[in-house]
Amino acid sequence: MMDSHLPSNPTSSTHDAQDPLDPLATAAGRNGATGLAERLAELRAWLADDLEALEQAVAGVHAGPDGAPRTDLDLAERSAAWLLGRPGKRIRPLCVMLAARLGGRGLDRTVRDLAVAAELVHAATLLHDDVIDEGDDRRGAPAARVLYGNSASILGGDHLLTLALRRVAGTAPHTVLVALLDVIAEMVRAEAVQLERRGRFEPSREAYLSVIEGKTAALFRWGFWAGGMAAELPQPALEALSGAGLALGMAFQLVDDAIDLESDGRDSGKTPFADLREGKLTWPLVVAVDRDPGLAEEIRGRIAEGGAGIDAGLVARVRRTGGIEATRTFAAEQAQLAAAHLEVLPAGQARRALQTVVDTALRRSK
Amino acid sequence: MMDSHLPSNPTSSTHDAQDPLDPLATAAGRNGATGLAERLAELRAWLADDLEALEQAVAGVHAGPDGAPRTDLDLAERSAAWLLGRPGKRIRPLCVMLAARLGGRGLDRTVRDLAVAAELVHAATLLHDDVIDEGDDRRGAPAARVLYGNSASILGGDHLLTLALRRVAGTAPHTVLVALLDVIAEMVRAEAVQLERRGRFEPSREAYLSVIEGKTAALFRWGFWAGGMAAELPQPALEALSGAGLALGMAFQLVDDAIDLESDGRDSGKTPFADLREGKLTWPLVVAVDRDPGLAEEIRGRIAEGGAGIDAGLVARVRRTGGIEATRTFAAEQAQLAAAHLEVLPAGQARRALQTVVDTALRRSK
Repeated sequence: MMDSHLPSNPTSSTHDAQDPLDPLATAAGRNGATGLAERLAELRAWLADDLEALEQAVAGVHAGPDGAPRTDLDLAERSAAWLLGRPGKRIRPLCVMLAARLGGRGLDRTVRDLAVAAELVHAATLLHDDVIDEGDDRRGAPAARVLYGNSASILGGDHLLTLALRRVAGTAPHTVLVALLDVIAEMVRAEAVQLERRGRFEPSREAYLSVIEGKTAALFRWGFWAGGMAAELPQPALEALSGAGLALGMAFQLVDDAIDLESDGRDSGKTPFADLREGKLTWPLVVAVDRDPGLAEEIRGRIAEGGAGIDAGLVARVRRTGGIEATRTFAAEQAQLAAAHLEVLPAGQARRALQTVVDTALRRSK
Repeated sequence: MMDSHLPSNPTSSTHDAQDPLDPLATAAGRNGATGLAERLAELRAWLADDLEALEQAVAGVHAGPDGAPRTDLDLAERSAAWLLGRPGKRIRPLCVMLAARLGGRGLDRTVRDLAVAAELVHAATLLHDDVIDEGDDRRGAPAARVLYGNSASILGGDHLLTLALRRVAGTAPHTVLVALLDVIAEMVRAEAVQLERRGRFEPSREAYLSVIEGKTAALFRWGFWAGGMAAELPQPALEALSGAGLALGMAFQLVDDAIDLESDGRDSGKTPFADLREGKLTWPLVVAVDRDPGLAEEIRGRIAEGGAGIDAGLVARVRRTGGIEATRTFAAEQAQLAAAHLEVLPAGQARRALQTVVDTALRRSK
């Protein structure tokens, strides 16, 4: 529930079969942003070894001492390994790696462990969220809870959370671990608030912004900051990185919200209108319900009728309010804010790459 | 799943209405262990202030800066506060406090935070386990998942786990936090193995022992050790404390297993035969299935018939194998092992109190 994930070949669960930047590149290319596609190609060439090492490190989470996948995984580990084996965007670990590169630190053990930890925390929340949301699909394949059961998915999330924290504890200063714990606390609180407000459709901008900061942006903020910490960047640079990460995370979630209502599902690989069906308050709905006050009541009624109630007519009414455009605009403003933070950081390939990530996150359509 | 909990007045959720040692004292008294009852009275008098402070600290987890209960709890916090507000045995925090006292360290902030963390980790696992086991009752009242829903119970567990880790991170050396993370990893793995083996009734002693060490004894071991660490006890004393905690935890879980089959539910406050109904492999069943090989098949068939299949006749057949007595004997051996570890520690009131906790855990009948 943190963000959507891209479809991929459901029969493949190998890591090296997928270039993690492909989804971003495809998304950018489809939007006709040619300059962006070139910058992505540059980023990919520059980071080819790092991205390969990252995938190996993610696969290595459930590997034995010889590097081969362990065959004695317990049920929690199997559900976790299933999710990790599906190709994702890996945008959070990418942010950690690039922030470290900004301070001249390559993908050594510490940076790699911090990057992997960001992905593991994200994956842990997906395993719990899919139980909470009764989600059936994830990363273009059946959710772990469908294959292994809700209980295995709950324990799989606990397992990944613990693994992430142990990894950070083993490699980074105490403050980095404490900051990650604070972020996890924010994520849990945001999920709880979202759960409680579900189905109400109260157009509360404050509540919405607080929820997406907690559920999505806080981990981006930590990833940028932790990468900078690993590179021992000075305090002003760390603050700029935190600001950029937070703004990117907000933009990322806003785009996710827009995609839920933009797509008819043919192209996005997502179940269309999933957020709407689940009664989640997204930014397009905040705007729509504000501009068309009868809409909240109407949506509540349709949800009560079940999935069939959410039809093209209702979505058209939401779209007519201009809520989706307002959301894309808001996301663009957050991306500009991220860019402004990046401006004060040392110029070079790493900063250019971070800007490319921001631009790509904004323009993606899936 | 970790252990059973005692019934109490379901209309009361205040903390000071309950002396946390009452359940232990009652259990000891009923077993006619008069000397033990006297030692418990001594322990209670000695620790009266500490026990009161502990209850206040547990209640304070969801209190505002003025100490009053917060009124703005989110859904995760409400489900967690509900469980914490039910009186439990508090045996894990008691172990932390007594281990610290053994090194001459009273209930200062660090010891209190470590003690509370032990209770929070335990409570977190209960919130997740009740979802996994579909448990309806907990500590003599409806489980949090019944009142607030499975999703709130999952997030409540995540919340308490994070809270416990932040508390330890804020007050104890890094190694104490890392050790707790290792314990949580053990707990998750044990739960996963137990979940996977459920309903099979394979009389594997190794699998059983590994599961109860992970799910119950590891946290006792950490509690003893962490209290000793806070008191800066020397390495041999820390090892003795770890050994004592591990053995006490094993004894505690073995007694829990026995109680599940001993009780008819009138006196224990537990649903009788809950473990058996859930298909959990407990030590009495390990022994029973070993001695009466047709029993595993019989139990599997009865469970398939639903709850009504687990009747007095089946339980009588299990009891006839002597599995319960064997379990009580095994628990007594573990208690003796704990006592042997305690013997090498400095004599005095704290050591006597730890021995009292061991003896009481062994003799309880609920």
